[in-house]
Amino acid sequence: MRSMIQRPRGTRDFGPAEMAKRRKTEQAMREACARAGFGEVVTPTFEHTELFTLRSGQAVIDEMYAFRDKGDREMALRPEITASVIRFFVNELSNLPKPLKLYYVGNCFRYENPQSGRYREFFQLGAELIGAKNPETDAEVIALAVNCIRAAGLEDFSVRVGHIGILKSMVREEIKDEAVAAEVLRMLDKENFDAMGDMFDAKALPRKLFDRITTMAETKGGVEVLDNLEKSDATEYLREVFSVLKLYGIEDCQVDLGIVRGLDYYTGMVFEIDAPRLGAEKQIMGGGSYTLSELFGGEPVFSTGFAIGIDRVMLALDAEKPAVEYTPLDAYVIPAKDDMRKYAFGIVARLRSQGISADVDLMRRTMSKNLKYASAVGARFAVIVGKEEMAKRSVTLRDMKSGEQRVVLADELGKEFERLLR
Amino acid sequence: MRSMIQRPRGTRDFGPAEMAKRRKTEQAMREACARAGFGEVVTPTFEHTELFTLRSGQAVIDEMYAFRDKGDREMALRPEITASVIRFFVNELSNLPKPLKLYYVGNCFRYENPQSGRYREFFQLGAELIGAKNPETDAEVIALAVNCIRAAGLEDFSVRVGHIGILKSMVREEIKDEAVAAEVLRMLDKENFDAMGDMFDAKALPRKLFDRITTMAETKGGVEVLDNLEKSDATEYLREVFSVLKLYGIEDCQVDLGIVRGLDYYTGMVFEIDAPRLGAEKQIMGGGSYTLSELFGGEPVFSTGFAIGIDRVMLALDAEKPAVEYTPLDAYVIPAKDDMRKYAFGIVARLRSQGISADVDLMRRTMSKNLKYASAVGARFAVIVGKEEMAKRSVTLRDMKSGEQRVVLADELGKEFERLLR
Repeated sequence: MRSMIQRPRGTRDFGPAEMAKRRKTEQAMREACARAGFGEVVTPTFEHTELFTLRSGQAVIDEMYAFRDKGDREMALRPEITASVIRFFVNELSNLPKPLKLYYVGNCFRYENPQSGRYREFFQLGAELIGAKNPETDAEVIALAVNCIRAAGLEDFSVRVGHIGILKSMVREEIKDEAVAAEVLRMLDKENFDAMGDMFDAKALPRKLFDRITTMAETKGGVEVLDNLEKSDATEYLREVFSVLKLYGIEDCQVDLGIVRGLDYYTGMVFEIDAPRLGAEKQIMGGGSYTLSELFGGEPVFSTGFAIGIDRVMLALDAEKPAVEYTPLDAYVIPAKDDMRKYAFGIVARLRSQGISADVDLMRRTMSKNLKYASAVGARFAVIVGKEEMAKRSVTLRDMKSGEQRVVLADELGKEFERLLR
Repeated sequence: MRSMIQRPRGTRDFGPAEMAKRRKTEQAMREACARAGFGEVVTPTFEHTELFTLRSGQAVIDEMYAFRDKGDREMALRPEITASVIRFFVNELSNLPKPLKLYYVGNCFRYENPQSGRYREFFQLGAELIGAKNPETDAEVIALAVNCIRAAGLEDFSVRVGHIGILKSMVREEIKDEAVAAEVLRMLDKENFDAMGDMFDAKALPRKLFDRITTMAETKGGVEVLDNLEKSDATEYLREVFSVLKLYGIEDCQVDLGIVRGLDYYTGMVFEIDAPRLGAEKQIMGGGSYTLSELFGGEPVFSTGFAIGIDRVMLALDAEKPAVEYTPLDAYVIPAKDDMRKYAFGIVARLRSQGISADVDLMRRTMSKNLKYASAVGARFAVIVGKEEMAKRSVTLRDMKSGEQRVVLADELGKEFERLLR
């Protein structure tokens, strides 16, 4: 016998029970997007590599599945989907009325060492509101992210909203050496204050500036923490965002001015959602407002977007509550003897046409083997068809959990199931 | 300005109107699978190249997106999903009760010249029934394929069912040179009878055999065409398949003994569905029974499966009937003045929580610009909030098509929409 072929390292196979949970979660988030007037887009799984390096810099190639196609073009499996959506917008959708509200659900790829909650193929749901930037549009996008997470059924999560302009402008005004300023921002993103202190010492930067920066980066709490800061465009902007969120019924957001986010194209509001039960890998969503379209050959256009890590949401849901039992099959129809097989197939065809998930003995098994199979595949009910039942155009309905049985007319079986499965 | 970045050749971007149609079709087919007791699986987008060459031969590499990953492993974007499902089965699911019924929906890739209805990234829905082969299991899989196509809403399609054993055994018995026999089967697959005739002449094969083979390959029609053939295991098997299909309410299948299908691992029943309106590229589904698991290191296990080309189904639906109008938004809420903005945000939040897709002016536009936007994005109703409306806790509801307007209490708006959208 040949040796088994393994799936690629860092990827996953999902079985029916897991997929039932995932599709339910995905569908709930999809509906949240549709309710908020976002339309779905799908873009190719691979793109010209340039699309991603323009957005994220050349270094991203090391973390991508990049390859040359047979026409010697440089291609990459997408590491994220925002770049593709904006490319699509620039190429084909730029004349649509603004704001344009789009969402996507798809798989992304990164080449890195697999670890808990990080996979080489992973799944994201994201949204982009394109063509405007103001407190209303930013609040709309934050509200959508929160409503997606709520729709997914997660209860224990926290939303932090910041403004990248506040820290960035402080750092860039005070530290004239651009490379040093960029390094400081990188350290802030990682909350690596110790290393930042060492660097301030090494570069003989004023300790007072260090204190101002770290105080700002550690400004976290209710919207009232903004009262402690010098009033600026950014603080007033954030206040307005929070007041619109309140109108949307979203009151439990926190201000967090320490959010820097890795990428350079974020321009204003930034936000993140954490599921604290996930520990170190607790961030399940990241987003903010940005301009990206001009990088891809379009006019500069303001956008706000986010991406939710579906895999982390699934982990967080698992951590929060025991999974709902997976019941793959409502009815398993068993003909007692060969004579009843035709009748049994008619019954199963009818159940299916009534929207009930139903299966039938395809193996001509004995009654006891069939009952064993029904139990093994997790059928909720066995529908047993014996000679007597067939003569009376009826079936015996057996609850596979309780073992309770009773006779039901075939014509009333659909209605009976509707009642039972409600 | 930079030049625009194009999407990769042969791939597509799908906008909201197209995606709404696709998700509806996909969801309807998904539900057909679930009703028949098939559970969904998802496998990685790329696999070790070997998985596909073991199934389809080395030649398939030329048509694949094959690449080396950073660990110098040979990987390929999947050209089909059956091989992955069987790998998953062999590695992890082989102890589950049989028959095991699985389905998948996913994207596949092939490197070939793009043409109408053929893309480099394309979408398939397929199913595999693993662990048995008998007329019931084969009929079950055919019935599922037909019910998926029906659920998608396609009306004009034809189902052809054959048995690969009949032609194959005839060809292999009579033509001892294996290479010649394989070439004949290949020509039969392409229905290239002229070239086959030339080859028979060149190899001095008996003309009588040519006639017998072509007569067999052209045996098409109702199940009664089997009466004209010598009785064999295969003809009796097909009769039984057709009789189970009838029990499932599927009566319009045709026998077609000319179906050969390209791949070698098909062992018995084979079937195809065409949408005649698509012309030359009319095949929308192909399937059959096969053994594949032993190739991937498992025990030999009989399976029956199929794959539906979702892109072709979408083309066939388009050819059959005009698309349903896409209405992305039920309600667009417009505050007449700034004073009503808070009230308006409350209204939109409430509508969304009631499951109504709703949007609100995020741009502080004038009334006339807002009405224009509502019309441009295809909102069915404008919900106008003026001073008077606000005072009376009501709104003005405007039908964007007819222009009809009337005042509705805010508390009754959800119920009113439910009535209007029914």
